[in-house]
Amino acid sequence: MPELTGNCLVAQSGGPTCVINSSLAGAVSEALNHECIEEIYGGLNGVLGILNEELVDLAAESQQTIRGLRYTPGAALGTCRYKLKKQQDFERVLQVFEAHNIRYFFYAGGNDSQDTADKISKLADERGFDLRVIGIPKTIDNDLVHTDHCPGYGSVIKHICTIVRQMACDNAAMGQGDLVSILEVMGRSAGWIAAGASLAKGKDRPHDPPHLIYLPEVAFSPDKFIEDVQRVLRREKYCLIVVGEGLVDKDGNYVSTTSAGSDSFGHAALGGAGDYLQNLLEENLGLKARAARLGYTQRAAATHISKTDSDEAFLAGQAAVRAAINGETDKMVTLLRGDSDQYTCETGLAPLSEVANGIKELPRDWIHEDGVSMNHQFYKYALPLIQGEIPVPYDNGLPVFAHLRKEKVKKHLEAYPID
Amino acid sequence: MPELTGNCLVAQSGGPTCVINSSLAGAVSEALNHECIEEIYGGLNGVLGILNEELVDLAAESQQTIRGLRYTPGAALGTCRYKLKKQQDFERVLQVFEAHNIRYFFYAGGNDSQDTADKISKLADERGFDLRVIGIPKTIDNDLVHTDHCPGYGSVIKHICTIVRQMACDNAAMGQGDLVSILEVMGRSAGWIAAGASLAKGKDRPHDPPHLIYLPEVAFSPDKFIEDVQRVLRREKYCLIVVGEGLVDKDGNYVSTTSAGSDSFGHAALGGAGDYLQNLLEENLGLKARAARLGYTQRAAATHISKTDSDEAFLAGQAAVRAAINGETDKMVTLLRGDSDQYTCETGLAPLSEVANGIKELPRDWIHEDGVSMNHQFYKYALPLIQGEIPVPYDNGLPVFAHLRKEKVKKHLEAYPID
Repeated sequence: MPELTGNCLVAQSGGPTCVINSSLAGAVSEALNHECIEEIYGGLNGVLGILNEELVDLAAESQQTIRGLRYTPGAALGTCRYKLKKQQDFERVLQVFEAHNIRYFFYAGGNDSQDTADKISKLADERGFDLRVIGIPKTIDNDLVHTDHCPGYGSVIKHICTIVRQMACDNAAMGQGDLVSILEVMGRSAGWIAAGASLAKGKDRPHDPPHLIYLPEVAFSPDKFIEDVQRVLRREKYCLIVVGEGLVDKDGNYVSTTSAGSDSFGHAALGGAGDYLQNLLEENLGLKARAARLGYTQRAAATHISKTDSDEAFLAGQAAVRAAINGETDKMVTLLRGDSDQYTCETGLAPLSEVANGIKELPRDWIHEDGVSMNHQFYKYALPLIQGEIPVPYDNGLPVFAHLRKEKVKKHLEAYPID
Repeated sequence: MPELTGNCLVAQSGGPTCVINSSLAGAVSEALNHECIEEIYGGLNGVLGILNEELVDLAAESQQTIRGLRYTPGAALGTCRYKLKKQQDFERVLQVFEAHNIRYFFYAGGNDSQDTADKISKLADERGFDLRVIGIPKTIDNDLVHTDHCPGYGSVIKHICTIVRQMACDNAAMGQGDLVSILEVMGRSAGWIAAGASLAKGKDRPHDPPHLIYLPEVAFSPDKFIEDVQRVLRREKYCLIVVGEGLVDKDGNYVSTTSAGSDSFGHAALGGAGDYLQNLLEENLGLKARAARLGYTQRAAATHISKTDSDEAFLAGQAAVRAAINGETDKMVTLLRGDSDQYTCETGLAPLSEVANGIKELPRDWIHEDGVSMNHQFYKYALPLIQGEIPVPYDNGLPVFAHLRKEKVKKHLEAYPID
């Protein structure tokens, strides 16, 4: 493979996770090791910043800042939900790459973002512009194909399990067989996140909280729900429920939608599944129930980052750079689990086009036959992903996160009109 | 003061906090130092357990467990919202105390609980039963009079500020001048908790998030709200809002109530102030906004306990025992702040009857004239309360909390009918 010399560009896309910045740190520190990479640029706000030619010099950031990215939530470069719409947008991306001699492009995101990366890669190939494009997996939704799991997932479920453990202490103190508390978690179309809450149960302790988990994969039945809660309250002092925001009825309709409609990718904006369950209980059983909705707080919960997740996110960033240096392109880094009983993880590669168009579903046979808990196959899968903690520095009583200086790279092109 | 020899009883009441168990640990470890206290009992579920003669032997707990209480949320002895209703209930309490030679009674709770303790104390006095009753302050609401602040408050606001700092990273990454996120926090009638979120701002950085704080103390105006949000979005990439659940309009009516009605003390059950704001924005500005509701998770957030708060809660438990040994009764321990610029805190005592009937309001002149932030007087008051962190032990990826063995004390009386 001939060596390709030029600059690299890293950008972040989609909803932030607690470890997407760890991937950025991995990519930057690996890029520094290779002389064929001359400048290390970051693109601000995903493809939006590329269209606007808003690039920053990542090599100018202090090592302290790059290290701090490992416990900093959000997306340090900024992200976007902007979707490249027309051929002209893609041409503009190549113009910007050409103007700045970008020969390596690393894009961290979910499947929409990998689709964008795939299209950029294919256009460069068509135009004969020598460019290597490697995607870095990122999504709390854990729904990318070809990868055992996605960076971001382990931390969000570790956070939710921590909350469940803490709430269980509170609820156990208050409950007299009449207390129901509901925790609404993210997960638009799959129950990966809600399912993860089951790890809060102790090993071989099926009656531990969360007592009931409602997943988008299991058609919701109000009658069964009422029975489920009654069964738990006959046995326990309280009933702790976790529900995925994307809960659907037997016809596949969301049980609850907010007035927000949909986001710019056409996804329905959700919220309120917890309130829906709360109302059902109050109307049918006269029980006081209280629903909490974690919302955006769950994907920003840096104080509960899984060290395993953060390390793997960093590794994915490093692996992306190494793959590109080795001549790979139009691929996404994947995480591959070893076969032994002791959990191990190494990286692989998968074609971007396949990642872009696939959705990894929560295996139905990992859901317990009761429909409201997960079986041992899920535990075996998910428990390794939440291991280890990352210390976050505090100052004056509060966590302090890293902020990039964002030294701007001089623009070479005319401004580009964005719709 | 003549020495009073007998057994002591500690019980916990009302909504749990992250540090009510620290007060329990303080009381138990101090009680062990005094020979006039023979047995150290815990009452399960507040007055409910006393009526039912459900006592446990706290001296039989391991030292490891007592130490673990310092980072364990909930209320290890259980709590209740049961209110002693009739004279007969109070007589029953004294019968149980007499049957178990309880001469020292320590009750950790808010003002309803201190009212109960006051009545028990006065009845014992009337009946000539030698009993010393000392209340231990506890409430995230921070609304007890005669005490500078309440154990539990520092930790809940430290948690909320941590969440705000984390969400700010997420929102800053996503926002393009069009993102509004809303965090609904507890606080039925006072804005102490919502106000505490202002500490998430850096020193002398009034434009830091949370950009807008809506308090029950300031009559809510939808028009001003819309203007506030527009003003922030002209300046910032996103607008992070904190709202207290007890937000009221100009006529003093809650802007939003759930169908849950009210709890057993007759308080209105709230929730939904965040959703209300979200809807206002969507309807009036067509903005997508996302509301998170922390609910019970905020008062159980052990991983964000303030060390200052935990230490003071422990101190309050110790001070309660010492005061009783010194002959005090019918009083609550208070926290007194020193006069110097360097924060110091020692304990005092206040009559239970005054605590029971008072409510400490958030001083109106601590609210900035913009109505949506706090001024330097609030910072000076609250910042010392969130200082320091407490490490929580983890096992297999999750925090592990202490659980009491709860060795039952043999009952001596007939069962008592509870309505």
